[in-house]
Parts: sequence; structure tokens; C-alpha cells
Amino acid sequence: MKTLKYPTKEQTAKALERPMQDNEVLRNRVKEIISQVRTGGDPSLLKLSRELDGFSGERFEISPSEMKAAAGLVSQDLKDAIDLARQNIERFHAVQRPEDISLVTQPGVYCSMQFKPLQKVGLYIPGGTAPLLSTVLMLAVPALVAGCSELVICTPPEPGPELLYTLSLFNARVFRLGGAQAIAAMAFGTDTIPRVDKIFGPGNRYVTEAKMQLSAMGIAIDMPAGPSEVLVIADATANPAFVAADLLSQAEHGADSQVVLITDSEKMLEATLKELEEQVSTLPRHDIALQCLENSTAILVKDLSEAMEISNDYAPEHLILALENPAATKAKVENAGSVFMGHYTPESLGDYSSGTNHTLPTAGAARSWSGVSLLSFMKTITFQEATPEGLDRLANATTILARAEGLEAHARAIEVRKSQF
Amino acid sequence: MKTLKYPTKEQTAKALERPMQDNEVLRNRVKEIISQVRTGGDPSLLKLSRELDGFSGERFEISPSEMKAAAGLVSQDLKDAIDLARQNIERFHAVQRPEDISLVTQPGVYCSMQFKPLQKVGLYIPGGTAPLLSTVLMLAVPALVAGCSELVICTPPEPGPELLYTLSLFNARVFRLGGAQAIAAMAFGTDTIPRVDKIFGPGNRYVTEAKMQLSAMGIAIDMPAGPSEVLVIADATANPAFVAADLLSQAEHGADSQVVLITDSEKMLEATLKELEEQVSTLPRHDIALQCLENSTAILVKDLSEAMEISNDYAPEHLILALENPAATKAKVENAGSVFMGHYTPESLGDYSSGTNHTLPTAGAARSWSGVSLLSFMKTITFQEATPEGLDRLANATTILARAEGLEAHARAIEVRKSQF
Repeated sequence: MKTLKYPTKEQTAKALERPMQDNEVLRNRVKEIISQVRTGGDPSLLKLSRELDGFSGERFEISPSEMKAAAGLVSQDLKDAIDLARQNIERFHAVQRPEDISLVTQPGVYCSMQFKPLQKVGLYIPGGTAPLLSTVLMLAVPALVAGCSELVICTPPEPGPELLYTLSLFNARVFRLGGAQAIAAMAFGTDTIPRVDKIFGPGNRYVTEAKMQLSAMGIAIDMPAGPSEVLVIADATANPAFVAADLLSQAEHGADSQVVLITDSEKMLEATLKELEEQVSTLPRHDIALQCLENSTAILVKDLSEAMEISNDYAPEHLILALENPAATKAKVENAGSVFMGHYTPESLGDYSSGTNHTLPTAGAARSWSGVSLLSFMKTITFQEATPEGLDRLANATTILARAEGLEAHARAIEVRKSQF
Repeated sequence: MKTLKYPTKEQTAKALERPMQDNEVLRNRVKEIISQVRTGGDPSLLKLSRELDGFSGERFEISPSEMKAAAGLVSQDLKDAIDLARQNIERFHAVQRPEDISLVTQPGVYCSMQFKPLQKVGLYIPGGTAPLLSTVLMLAVPALVAGCSELVICTPPEPGPELLYTLSLFNARVFRLGGAQAIAAMAFGTDTIPRVDKIFGPGNRYVTEAKMQLSAMGIAIDMPAGPSEVLVIADATANPAFVAADLLSQAEHGADSQVVLITDSEKMLEATLKELEEQVSTLPRHDIALQCLENSTAILVKDLSEAMEISNDYAPEHLILALENPAATKAKVENAGSVFMGHYTPESLGDYSSGTNHTLPTAGAARSWSGVSLLSFMKTITFQEATPEGLDRLANATTILARAEGLEAHARAIEVRKSQF
């Protein structure tokens, strides 16, 4: 890790700058894929899937029986682990159900706001070496709790038994379809892939770029996604072995993961660096973790309030408060995706099992965006109803405002009614 | 209006297709403007503003005293109207304040979700012939109720006294700056224009295109915006003069406004068409309204449930239920921005004064997006804290899941803590 001791604000800002992601080749390729899927439908999808994912089948959809058959290949321990995580996620998202609002704003003017589930949602579950079982739970559970009527899930061919088993737990239509082409198919629909109202889920650079391009076309997505991040604020009471383990659990995600340590204790800083060196060497993914650490930063600050200020400016996806008294710092958190408090709350808990959602804003987006919650799967509709009395009370103000904006017909829509009283 | 009597589903879908908005010249021009502002800062902004808006000043910011001076030029009637609308909007948004969530998901595992106001928000208020006073209220009031710490407002030079007066009511920094360049400036910040966390507000094609391009770059925006829309469902009890007035209050917005009437009463349909003809002729904006009506559709259906089905597929920005018993139909509304119930609730009330927000999803986006509400100015942060007991309860499931995903360091972050118990 690069180490900064008592840096100026400018030095800190420079050290914590996220790398710019701008790749014109990628952008053009994804644009082409989206356009092919949009205009070419299923035949284009099949062609792309063969070329890009080596798909050799004829049918994208995975039948429920195919998913259920995977259950026999999954250990009971893993099934129990999935079950526990699922229960906690379900509980924590169920209590997020918002209440409908209603208010009489003036006598005879009844206003209300209802929360409704989105009808069709599309979830993307990345493939690759590590099957993201937890991502299935983090997206499908809240969608079902919200009451979405149709779940569409795309995942690259060929999902292993663990992923198939996890997918079988939800009443979803699952397609073996990956990459930007899967995202485009869910955005526009084809004969076999349903068009959805909103697209959720992480993915590689193609998937992420497709989501961003589609969002410029008005398609709703969960949030912009970049490489995963953790920022740890540790005081002198923190255990260097715990802190090093937390930094490494972020570093193993990828060489482009962002890992930041801020502490007011030089002793703690040195001890953590030493622990890092020891722990990283025995990790199966130590090459990735080492590469990530090389680009990572440890900062020694004068006190915890400076640490919090840096963190709020950085707006980390994950914030670990490895502090003796994290409750005192909690109120100062302005920008962060999810916060892990105290010495016994590693990020792994939120990644899998505590109940909070692990789909969180990265790259500073926590300033503007929320992590996935039950609300991400809902929308609001407002209603109003005026009695003649209510209309009468608002009539004067409304016609004056409409005319001030040059909208005469708006004023007359009031007056034509008043003339009938 | 084009009239369809008892059409098939396909005929209806075809008639209600919104015109595609795709203009490469516009797209490239906006891309260029964004890039100029991003790299060139204030000097580029000044240059663009002079070229595109005829700006002749040196300073973008409008001083509070300049705004306050406008008060003397505004009638007391208009001030009172603004005040009444503001009160209702404030009341209805204040009751939307969400409650923080907390739950013990397992003994020793404390999860919570806090709602926090966004810190800096940027509001765009279009210029042009009609000063959109109401848009100031619809965006600035909820921002203040939410507790946003900084309001940045851009509006093209030169705002008239009514707009200046309305702007003076909020503790905002106001800039005379319009178009795509204003949106880009708020997204990235310049020396004079603060960078904001989220951008709100309607605008012309340049503004809208800029918001969409910026959303592909991860900038948070309120929602995609297109031409305004109303869909009226009327039964035999509806008053043709009222319905015609409502259709016209949408049609006067622009030739590209979308106006749809659905009814199960042929008599009502014919009478409304006749009323339209009479009412449109005396409107100051009758050319615009006539052009809009030419592209608009009236549909005769067999019953109200067919009407609701068409409406839910169309997902209108504004839905007027001109029905004897609108409450019976309310529960069937799945997709709509804001709903106006009964014979005495013209859309104008929601546009100005009932208290609901008039910033609503268009072009079918109501399937996926909510209108602006208090929640639009807030974000959520989740927190979790485990005691050693809580960690112990989750340890087994978490390590099993982490290893199933190939993430060994995630498992070890749990085990290194367990080893210290």
C-alpha cells in the first residue's frame, strides 16, 4: 500500500482519485451489440451468444426441472447457508415496506401517494469462475418481497449446480444468456426474452457499459457500477489482523478494487501493513490481491474527524468503522453505501448474511445513489381528488398561476367547472 | 382527433405508439457542449452562453438583492397564489418523510437503514416565453423539506420579475445559465458553478439530451423526460365540456404533447369532439393545440376494464378518471405518474396547487420510474453491527457461502475474528 502520513487535502484527493473508465472500443462494441439485439431479436441474440459465449444450445430458457435437478448435487451445508442468508435478507427487506401516504391538503382536496411494486424486473447474475449465489439472493429476495409479478433472470451459459439450485428457489424465468446482449434483450424484449421495467445486477465491463448506454435511452437500472471498494477507518483499539483481513477481502475481488485505510494511530498503521504482508501470501488469489494493494492507499490522519471528512468526500461503497466507539461516528456518515460498525463486523457479513443488501453504489456514486433496497423494486403513483368545495378553494390560485405561465387552457379547465356550480 | 371505435389490441397499440426521438445532430452537438464545459470550465461556459443564449453579462450568479428587488414588480394576487401552492406542496411532501428502519436480524446482529438528504442538488428551470414558476415550487420545496444543504438553480438569461420573485423565496444560489451547458456545469462543476449530486428539472431537447448523456456517465438525474401527456378515461357521466377542457390544457403545451381519450360511451365521445372544436378556437395557443389534436387519439372501448388495461399498457404521465365512481377504478391503476379522480379534479390542480408533484415520468417511463417526491431528494445508507455472539451465529453460513463463491479472504475475515474469541 502507498502510505501517506498527515497529507494535505490536495494530496489526499489526488491519492484517492478513482481511475477514469473510458474505453471507446468497448463503447462502440456495446453500442453495436445493443443495436443488433434491438433490431435483430432472437436470431441476433443466438448469433451473438454463440460467438461471444460459445453457447451451443438452441434454447435460452432453463426449465424449472433442470434447475431442481441441481439440488442433488449441492451439499446440505451450502443449502443451509443459503437458507440462513435468505431469511435475514428477507426479514431486513420486509421491514422496509413503505406506508402509503394520504393527506387532505385543503378542505375538499384529497392527495395520496401509493407505493406499487414494479411489474417485471430483470436480474443479471454474472458467470465466470465464481458463481455469485449471493447476488441471486440480494436481488431476487427483495423483488419477491416487493411483490413484483415477473422475475426474469439472465446468467451466462453454463451455470453450475450451486447457481442452478439457488435460482430454483425463486419463481423466476431463467435464461442462459450473458453479457451486453442479455442486458439489451431484457431492455427491449425479444420473442423469447421478456422486456422488463428495470434492470438490476453487476457484471463485467460489457454488462456495465450496456446498462449505462441503455440508461441514456431511458431504461431504468439499479445504479451505475464500477469496481468494488472498501474504506476502513481504524483507531488505536483496532486489531491489525482483523483490519488486514478486511482489506484483503476487498483486494481479492480484482486488481482494480479500491482499498483505503485511514487511521489516527501510526502504530496501528504499521502493524496492519505487516499483517497484510503475512496474510496475503497464503491467499489462493494472492496475485490479484497483491496487484490491488499496490494501487491502494493508507493514510495517517491527525484525528477521527479528519478521517470521516475524507471518507464523506470519497463516498465509499463499503465503510468499516473499526473503532472503539463506532456509534459516536455513525451520525457523521454522510456518503457511503453500507457501513460496518465495530471490531466484530467484517464486510463479509454484509456481503452474504447480515440481511443488508450488498448491491451498493461505487465510484463516489454514494453521494447521489442509494444501495438496492425494497424501494428499488417499487415505484410511487400520486392521486388527487377534489370535491367542488376543494376545487373552489384552489380555483383562484390555480388560474392566476396558469395565466402567469401563459397557459390559458389550464385556467379554463378550472373555470369551465366553476361555471357549473 | 383520430377516432378508433372498438379497435383490436394491435390497432390500439399502433395508434398509441409514441414518436421515436432520435436525432444524431442533436446528440453530437450536446456531446460537444458537455465536453467543452467539462474540460474548459468557466471560459467555455461563458463562450457557449454568449453564442447560444445571447448572454451579454460577465457574471452568471444572480444576487439575492437582485431577486428581492423583483418583489415590487409582482402583483399581490400572484404572490398569494404562489404562497397557497407552496403551502400545499410543502404539506404533501412533508408527510412523505420516510422513517429509518432498524431490525435485529439475528441475536447480536443489528441492521439499520437511514434516510439522508442529498447534500447538493441542481435544479433546472427552463426559460422561454412562459416562466415556469410552478417548476421552481415543485423542485425547491421538496429539496428544502428533505433537508438538502445546498440548492443550485440554473435558468436561462434573462428571467422576468415573476420568476426572480419565486426564486427569491428559497435560500438557493441562482445562475443565469441555460441549455445543455447549464446541465453539464452542474454535473461537473466549474469555478463558479458548484458540482451537484443530482440534477432535476425539465427543459428543451438540448437539456433533456444532456441529462440523458450525463446519466450514461453515472450522473444522477430525476428521470428521463419527454413531451407531456394526458390520458382521460371518461364514462357516460363525464361532462364533455370538462373533458374537452382537460384535453386542451394538455394540447396547449406543444404540438408533440400526447393526448388520449378513452371512453365506453359513444355519445360522450361525439359530444367531446364537438366541444373540443368549439373550445379550441378561442384559445390564445390554438395553433399549437390544433396541431397536437391532429396527432391525438380517441378510443371507444366496450367497458372500463378494457380502458384501464390500455392505460396501464400506455403508462401515461397524467391519468384523469372522469368517472362516476373513480374509487372503484383506483386500485386497478398499475402504471401512471399522477392520477386525477372524478369530475372536479382537472389536471391543472396537480400542475399547480393540490400539493402533489408535477414532475412526472413520460413516454411510458411510469412503468419503471416514480414522479418526483421527497424520496427523490434523499438517499439511504445501511448500517450493521455484530456483537461477538452475532458474528458467531453468522460465521458458518458466511464462510460456506464465501468459499462457494471462491472468495477465500472473505471467509478468513470471519475466521480471524473467531480465532480470538
